[in-house]
Amino acid sequence: MTTGSFVDVLIIGAGPAGLMCATALASAGIGVRVIDKRVTRLLTGQADGIQPRTTESYGLGDRLLREAVQLHMAAFYNPSEQGGIECTDMKPDITPNARFPYKLALNQGAIEAIFLDSLNSNGLGVDYSVIPTSITFDESKLSDTIAHVVKVTLQHLETSSSPGRTETVNAKFVLGADGAHSWVRKALGITMDGDQTEHIWGAVDLVPDTDFPDIRNRTAIHSVNGSIMIIPRENDMVRLYIQLSDRDVIDPASGRVDKSRMTPEKLIAVAQKSFLPYILKDAQDVDWWTVYVIGQRVASKFSAHERVFIAGDACHTHSPKAGQGMNASINDTHNLAWKLVHVLRGWADFSLLKSYEFERQKYAQDLIDFDKTHAGLFSAKPKTKSFEDGVSHEENFKAFQTFAEFASGVGIQYEESTWINAKHQSSAPNLTIGQRMPPQILIRTCDYRPYDIHEYLVADARFKILVFAGDVNDEMQLAKVYALAEELEKPTSFLRKYLKDAQSIESKFSIVTIVAKTKGPVKMLGIPVLFRPHWSKVLTDDTDVTQATGGHAYERFGIAQDEVTLVVVRPDGFVGTIALASHYDDLNKYFAGFMRVLV
Amino acid sequence: MTTGSFVDVLIIGAGPAGLMCATALASAGIGVRVIDKRVTRLLTGQADGIQPRTTESYGLGDRLLREAVQLHMAAFYNPSEQGGIECTDMKPDITPNARFPYKLALNQGAIEAIFLDSLNSNGLGVDYSVIPTSITFDESKLSDTIAHVVKVTLQHLETSSSPGRTETVNAKFVLGADGAHSWVRKALGITMDGDQTEHIWGAVDLVPDTDFPDIRNRTAIHSVNGSIMIIPRENDMVRLYIQLSDRDVIDPASGRVDKSRMTPEKLIAVAQKSFLPYILKDAQDVDWWTVYVIGQRVASKFSAHERVFIAGDACHTHSPKAGQGMNASINDTHNLAWKLVHVLRGWADFSLLKSYEFERQKYAQDLIDFDKTHAGLFSAKPKTKSFEDGVSHEENFKAFQTFAEFASGVGIQYEESTWINAKHQSSAPNLTIGQRMPPQILIRTCDYRPYDIHEYLVADARFKILVFAGDVNDEMQLAKVYALAEELEKPTSFLRKYLKDAQSIESKFSIVTIVAKTKGPVKMLGIPVLFRPHWSKVLTDDTDVTQATGGHAYERFGIAQDEVTLVVVRPDGFVGTIALASHYDDLNKYFAGFMRVLV
Repeated sequence: MTTGSFVDVLIIGAGPAGLMCATALASAGIGVRVIDKRVTRLLTGQADGIQPRTTESYGLGDRLLREAVQLHMAAFYNPSEQGGIECTDMKPDITPNARFPYKLALNQGAIEAIFLDSLNSNGLGVDYSVIPTSITFDESKLSDTIAHVVKVTLQHLETSSSPGRTETVNAKFVLGADGAHSWVRKALGITMDGDQTEHIWGAVDLVPDTDFPDIRNRTAIHSVNGSIMIIPRENDMVRLYIQLSDRDVIDPASGRVDKSRMTPEKLIAVAQKSFLPYILKDAQDVDWWTVYVIGQRVASKFSAHERVFIAGDACHTHSPKAGQGMNASINDTHNLAWKLVHVLRGWADFSLLKSYEFERQKYAQDLIDFDKTHAGLFSAKPKTKSFEDGVSHEENFKAFQTFAEFASGVGIQYEESTWINAKHQSSAPNLTIGQRMPPQILIRTCDYRPYDIHEYLVADARFKILVFAGDVNDEMQLAKVYALAEELEKPTSFLRKYLKDAQSIESKFSIVTIVAKTKGPVKMLGIPVLFRPHWSKVLTDDTDVTQATGGHAYERFGIAQDEVTLVVVRPDGFVGTIALASHYDDLNKYFAGFMRVLV
Repeated sequence: MTTGSFVDVLIIGAGPAGLMCATALASAGIGVRVIDKRVTRLLTGQADGIQPRTTESYGLGDRLLREAVQLHMAAFYNPSEQGGIECTDMKPDITPNARFPYKLALNQGAIEAIFLDSLNSNGLGVDYSVIPTSITFDESKLSDTIAHVVKVTLQHLETSSSPGRTETVNAKFVLGADGAHSWVRKALGITMDGDQTEHIWGAVDLVPDTDFPDIRNRTAIHSVNGSIMIIPRENDMVRLYIQLSDRDVIDPASGRVDKSRMTPEKLIAVAQKSFLPYILKDAQDVDWWTVYVIGQRVASKFSAHERVFIAGDACHTHSPKAGQGMNASINDTHNLAWKLVHVLRGWADFSLLKSYEFERQKYAQDLIDFDKTHAGLFSAKPKTKSFEDGVSHEENFKAFQTFAEFASGVGIQYEESTWINAKHQSSAPNLTIGQRMPPQILIRTCDYRPYDIHEYLVADARFKILVFAGDVNDEMQLAKVYALAEELEKPTSFLRKYLKDAQSIESKFSIVTIVAKTKGPVKMLGIPVLFRPHWSKVLTDDTDVTQATGGHAYERFGIAQDEVTLVVVRPDGFVGTIALASHYDDLNKYFAGFMRVLV
């Protein structure tokens, strides 16, 4: 007999990966419960780097942009012939192809607060001081996609306000977002493949008192005394990553890092040597600090039976200095959440959930490969006259450039699959299928207001159908648009086939029409009603009235103005497939690969 | 014997003018009480036009930009030779010199909610269902600037939850922001000078169903059946201003407008005729409506003894169609609030309060003059073949252009006075003393982040001292900067003279240094500490790292790079005066005109 409570999705771990997932599921109306072993939410420290892709997606942007600091410039310091260090280069630290082209930095607690506030607005919170103690599957029901097949025993830890107790939760799905030492991963017997490095680092958040000129820029210092990475932060703070030597922190007996051998004062003393000839004074205000050895590992599996998933640090660990960890974690569950929503709503076949591991494990491996190069170069000794075998600034800078798109998140590429179909890539050669839809300013036809297309690609679990309709003031072209509308209105078209009873197309798909620049005002009311479900959903590929922004989207993407081109953007913002009107049946096939006809 | 409660400032009327003042005073820590005769706050209708100057100032921008619709294009419709109307012109409806160059539209209730939320965050609210019944001055104490000399009797109206009662409030200052029929104005015996016009208009907020192409643009329709102004609004709504004829609404017996003779259905029927050949269907959803006759009047005085002030509709009434009213009201008390703060804190001489009437009455008269032209042209019959004496589109459009800067708010000019000193206008010929400081993108020196100078000009009651320091990497120029710093550090300088005990300069002034573009990084740590009170307060006149924005401020303002130029920006964002370093003593004189030495 089954006892205990029931929930659609149980999330174990309230860090960025778990909270991202909880927020996305809760806003879609999915039943969620979040537990965390910590006593309360994080207030300081930990991850702080926010990549351009993270800022532009998930609806976090507004508040992140208000609260975080922005990194626009990277400075490079190397050994000087006079001893100490000198600035050898400064480079804009930007991602031209991103909507917000600069990195942000903000403490992890503040980022989690954005998710927590969203959860709270949905009447949800996190159950703190709770740990899982067992997890089992009801194997007989695994084929029933809506059964509560995962049983998890939870232990409420004893706190000052309540005694401990145990309970049982029956979930349809479980997410293990419980960090590098993931209990869920271990309980499922999933191994971590890869190595521990030899590189030992310390990190400290402090308000610095220094004459170092680039203390408010992202600065890489390579000195003969060790390397330092500076990340400016909110409230006058700065995060310093400080390279340590074995003798600083290794316990000779165990050979392991022993944090108790280190103090923030000692960390700063190490940094002071690398800053010379600049003076870094002893810090008055240390907000947070840690020491760590870099491990570079990926989980062998990302799921068990597509019923329990792991995400974030639970499935990949690497160096923090490239500012990837939190972004990778958020991106993991951003990839997963819409798929859970589709399966739980009965919209998609269960097999859609296999795409999570398929897409994210490959990404994680790319991330480790990137990190091996990046962290290796950064931990290596710099090239000097007396050490010709060291790493030169040129080598470092080349790596910085090579990995910029990947590190920013905008260059992430998912492989071809049922869910990423590049058959008609040539219909829009510069709009890469399997990458996120790039930002593009378009003008809202009816009121000339400029919008970034990203504002039409909100993560609301709907597929977005972008209809590049050409010059609709041209009768020949408009005839093509009407012909397509006629096909798509048929009950067999993907727009209609998966609807039940009185469901509207817009409940499952969001149609956005992008017309080419026309002579004179766009005759918007001449467009088929299917392609203008609301006055706000027709955009023009033109500059704004001040001619400061917008325009040239067709040209930029390589889309022909005398065709009608359909671009399918997945709920996570990735381009799923593309087809000309003449190939619209390939869209029927694409959606038939994972969508379910509702009965 | 004095009885009753005591408060620094009693505000009568919780519309935009009153709430603006309350919000500004409360954030400065001044004791405020706000009463209003209404039962509860406004939820709909009334004013809705937000001019560029309103968006860029007062700290409302972020939320306004999220909630309001933006107007980018103006369309003009005139009689067609085929009968009905046709589009004769479309023009970008923008203010190039504004930070946010477009107008916004949002219902007044939503705008008041922004202020109310700010008030609430300071623990304050509005006392509704309360009216003043008497106001008296203790004339014997008028010379004592900190005495509670104004006694106001308040009547709490009987409501379902409480019986009526009276109370007495003793205030240092009173603001009458109680609308066109202001009780305060009448109690003080202040007359309204000017005329009622003959023009009768209706206004209605509705969700339109129409084939009119420009329903989401700001559209002026001149038809032979009357004129219409369309203002698109939030939630798919549209505001229509509809010209009416006497017979529609005038009560023949009284000769006055009788709202009971009109209904929203009748209003829409009038509009339908002017829309032809386009179809405006009978509206399902009317959110709000009214009828009115335009009065064009200015109060003869804006204050009594500089102890009681009137603001907003209480001192100027005019046509609503140019979208001025709410902006003028907010601007009135934006002008007043910092002066009250300075006098109440003892920072400024009482005479500073005289500048309110001096500056705002002149503005109100300019506003009426503008409105006479604008509303007159708009109410006039259009020129057609059969009516050659009508107003042509060219005349209308010329007026639209002529008044654009004034109407947007960015062209408002205060006259020379103790508080606006244009003696050294030639030191920055293109930075007009007496107008608001224009927006300008500058780069924060230490981290290359672009900022609009407006972000450094927040309405925090402090005067802002902009130090245009030139190329500080040049030793000759830096010597000039040091020489100025030495003078300004003297106890007789305006920066020091008005401080008491341990007060810091930054408690009263905000110093922002703007250096010219240099070769290589700016040597920021070489600048005198006086001119870099925090690392964030040195800006560079350069483009951002993407070279998309910023730069050329010295050139644009006409400021010499080989001088050191000081620009004084008042707490309300208006340029108060300008002087070269060699004339810094004129700044001492400027501040001596109204600042008080604290004892």
